[in-house]
Amino acid sequence: MLADLREQVWQANFDLVKYGLVILTFGNVSGLDRKKGIMAIKPSGIPYSRMNPTDLVLIDLEGKVVEGKLNPSSDTSTHLALYRAFPDIGGVSHAHSEYATAFAQACREIPCLGTTHADHFNGPVPVTRHLTLVEVRDDYEANTGKVIAERFAGLKPLETPSVLVAGHGPFSWGGSAGEAVKNSLVLEKIAKMAILTGLVNPKIESLPDHLLAKHYLRKHGPQATYGQAKGPAPRPDSLVRKRSHR
Amino acid sequence: MLADLREQVWQANFDLVKYGLVILTFGNVSGLDRKKGIMAIKPSGIPYSRMNPTDLVLIDLEGKVVEGKLNPSSDTSTHLALYRAFPDIGGVSHAHSEYATAFAQACREIPCLGTTHADHFNGPVPVTRHLTLVEVRDDYEANTGKVIAERFAGLKPLETPSVLVAGHGPFSWGGSAGEAVKNSLVLEKIAKMAILTGLVNPKIESLPDHLLAKHYLRKHGPQATYGQAKGPAPRPDSLVRKRSHR
Amino acid sequence: MLADLREQVWQANFDLVKYGLVILTFGNVSGLDRKKGIMAIKPSGIPYSRMNPTDLVLIDLEGKVVEGKLNPSSDTSTHLALYRAFPDIGGVSHAHSEYATAFAQACREIPCLGTTHADHFNGPVPVTRHLTLVEVRDDYEANTGKVIAERFAGLKPLETPSVLVAGHGPFSWGGSAGEAVKNSLVLEKIAKMAILTGLVNPKIESLPDHLLAKHYLRKHGPQATYGQAKGPAPRPDSLVRKRSHR
Amino acid sequence: MLADLREQVWQANFDLVKYGLVILTFGNVSGLDRKKGIMAIKPSGIPYSRMNPTDLVLIDLEGKVVEGKLNPSSDTSTHLALYRAFPDIGGVSHAHSEYATAFAQACREIPCLGTTHADHFNGPVPVTRHLTLVEVRDDYEANTGKVIAERFAGLKPLETPSVLVAGHGPFSWGGSAGEAVKNSLVLEKIAKMAILTGLVNPKIESLPDHLLAKHYLRKHGPQATYGQAKGPAPRPDSLVRKRSHR
Repeated sequence: MLADLREQVWQANFDLVKYGLVILTFGNVSGLDRKKGIMAIKPSGIPYSRMNPTDLVLIDLEGKVVEGKLNPSSDTSTHLALYRAFPDIGGVSHAHSEYATAFAQACREIPCLGTTHADHFNGPVPVTRHLTLVEVRDDYEANTGKVIAERFAGLKPLETPSVLVAGHGPFSWGGSAGEAVKNSLVLEKIAKMAILTGLVNPKIESLPDHLLAKHYLRKHGPQATYGQAKGPAPRPDSLVRKRSHR
Repeated sequence: MLADLREQVWQANFDLVKYGLVILTFGNVSGLDRKKGIMAIKPSGIPYSRMNPTDLVLIDLEGKVVEGKLNPSSDTSTHLALYRAFPDIGGVSHAHSEYATAFAQACREIPCLGTTHADHFNGPVPVTRHLTLVEVRDDYEANTGKVIAERFAGLKPLETPSVLVAGHGPFSWGGSAGEAVKNSLVLEKIAKMAILTGLVNPKIESLPDHLLAKHYLRKHGPQATYGQAKGPAPRPDSLVRKRSHR
Repeated sequence: MLADLREQVWQANFDLVKYGLVILTFGNVSGLDRKKGIMAIKPSGIPYSRMNPTDLVLIDLEGKVVEGKLNPSSDTSTHLALYRAFPDIGGVSHAHSEYATAFAQACREIPCLGTTHADHFNGPVPVTRHLTLVEVRDDYEANTGKVIAERFAGLKPLETPSVLVAGHGPFSWGGSAGEAVKNSLVLEKIAKMAILTGLVNPKIESLPDHLLAKHYLRKHGPQATYGQAKGPAPRPDSLVRKRSHR
Repeated sequence: MLADLREQVWQANFDLVKYGLVILTFGNVSGLDRKKGIMAIKPSGIPYSRMNPTDLVLIDLEGKVVEGKLNPSSDTSTHLALYRAFPDIGGVSHAHSEYATAFAQACREIPCLGTTHADHFNGPVPVTRHLTLVEVRDDYEANTGKVIAERFAGLKPLETPSVLVAGHGPFSWGGSAGEAVKNSLVLEKIAKMAILTGLVNPKIESLPDHLLAKHYLRKHGPQATYGQAKGPAPRPDSLVRKRSHR
């Protein structure tokens, strides 16, 4: 059942390892078949070297296991909450990668300091509030998804495809499991660059808005010029005004 | 004699290299057959590339060599002291890994700044006091074990499976040699994340206790939900009160 | 057409990956046949693992595509502007490598702190000003080349074969595409060393001029003694006076 | 001629690459046959991938080429000066490794902050003064050796087998070329740990003398207990008094 989705999500989980974003059995990636409303997700605590596509667990959006003998990732409820809150996403990736996790632990957003960031995130990468004692006790993983969704009020999830959960680590997403993992990788890279930038010049401010918009729009939206689907160059000055989240 | 233990401990020593935790002949791992009271440990100063399972030295808990022609690790007496002080452990791992050693050299504990830490250590990773001149002179390696045991008064060794020896480096342990090495790896990762977190926000405080407890208990104890042996979710608020070491 | 140039530039693009300077499809390298006035450049957004020499795009110095079906790199106009402004260069390399990008994002030049730097750059690595809103809007990539050329007034491009574009990242160049990539690698190395040096001693000043000149001239110019084409030792004191850019 | 020495030195040069201490053609290692008074050294500017043992250059201690068609390393005169000044050494290694070079560029010694350091260096790793303008002009490479020797007045070269040349980088040595390269590797490791330690606790002081002596003497001298040639344990308190260089 859903062999293609299993294969994609299985590959995406391995990419987390290949990119150096996880050790041991840390990290988990899922992908969603939005039509059928079924998610494939990594099983909990299984070493990557022994994991096969058939070990993935299929779960519907209400959290019912549809197929699979193994326990799903302990973060399953967070993935489900994100799919429900963000109707355009098709993949979620979670890794305790070192530099992004440092920002999450520091409870600080990652400011947009350069065009590498602007090429992928249309503004700073936000950080959630801490969960309350009751939220932790009663349904921790689902409430993690809830505080992420709460933080994204007014933001477009696919324009800022990552979040830092305070005291925990990053979640990334995208159109597919593979895109979600790529966003995890880029997030780690820009988090590292942001820390290094702070070492060179602690007083540096965010990139000017017009440069952020220019780079973001070279790669995204109907007027993107990056890659192999050319269009006319966008006008960044007019687009700056549309962005509501800075 | 004890071929399985030899094989496990030999593999665990190699994992130290594979995980990038040691260079040259640095580091040593041992495993204990608690029933027979016999420990297998790496020989001293032998390159990993030439070390075979039969090169490991078998030693009883009083320090008598039971089998083996080579000299055991120069840290043997520390390993023995730990096995005697902590009756539940079955493996000890010692590596001068860079980030954990930085905390040991700085004589600072690793605070619990996030859930990666809380998933594996039920509180901060403690640091010992310096050994006195007499302790260094008279039986240095055994006294290293003594100050570790002294530091763990009131702590449960398997809930905090690592320590930083001041001015020296980390020792980790676990149910087996393999578990000890995994704890060395996780320790290094959380030490690195703690340093990076301090660069982002030098004033950050430890994770709230209820979140620490929640994550620790997802992975440990009778009510753990992580991995493939499911149980009901624990109630972190009641468990916080039981933890004596914070 | 120009199969040799294609091959060289294709190899140089792969070296960016091999040296760890790029991830995903980041980065782009070009090479110029100055006689024919034709540049070969990486296509936009094509994964390195699927890129063949025949995928490179050939473009003349006015920006007209001479051969190639794919869209050229989104930074093509910057490459062309550099070739037009710096008549001695034959290759351009652009990578968002972590440490050099940190200096670019911090809007700070890389000071010459040691002989590793002086062996390759005859003075600090300069940083451009930010582009204005109009420059971003009207012809962003060409204007990036313009502000680089503006910053190099009075500098010799082959003596300082890299620049940091403020808020963006480094561009490097050289006699060929291969040389440009080597300069990208050395730039990243000296950027990292400069950050580390600042951690050890935040008040350190630049290398004395006579030592900078000595090292630079051991490797460059008619009197270089490095490598396999020996000449008499240069007199650094007389050469210091000639350097106009410090 | 001296095929064994060539082979050893060739291997040692490759180990510099294997250990990640050099990029491109950076770095050079030599070995000396003290009886014959002949040194084998890496040729200048030859890529490691194309270098054969027969490419090494044989030079006597007065600097005369005995065998070899290629130009020797540009640092040859520094190597020769070290062999003349330090009669017990048989190998010299020079690499612009990142962390050790950071200390050299910062003009700061590496303090002994832990037992990893004390296992290999009997005290801090010293830094030279800057060369004067005249020293740079008249015989730069030989004078680099001279300021190193000057800095080691009162120190035993084999007890502190590395130095930091101010504004330049580290030189290491040992009984053989292979030992010299191992010391380069350990030096880089302790330099990295020292920087990290400073990030955790900027006010940390050097390791107590009795612990430094204990660790140094576990691995060195007639009473060493490390490795496979056992002897009785040394008395560190009596040995502390003998150390003249702290």
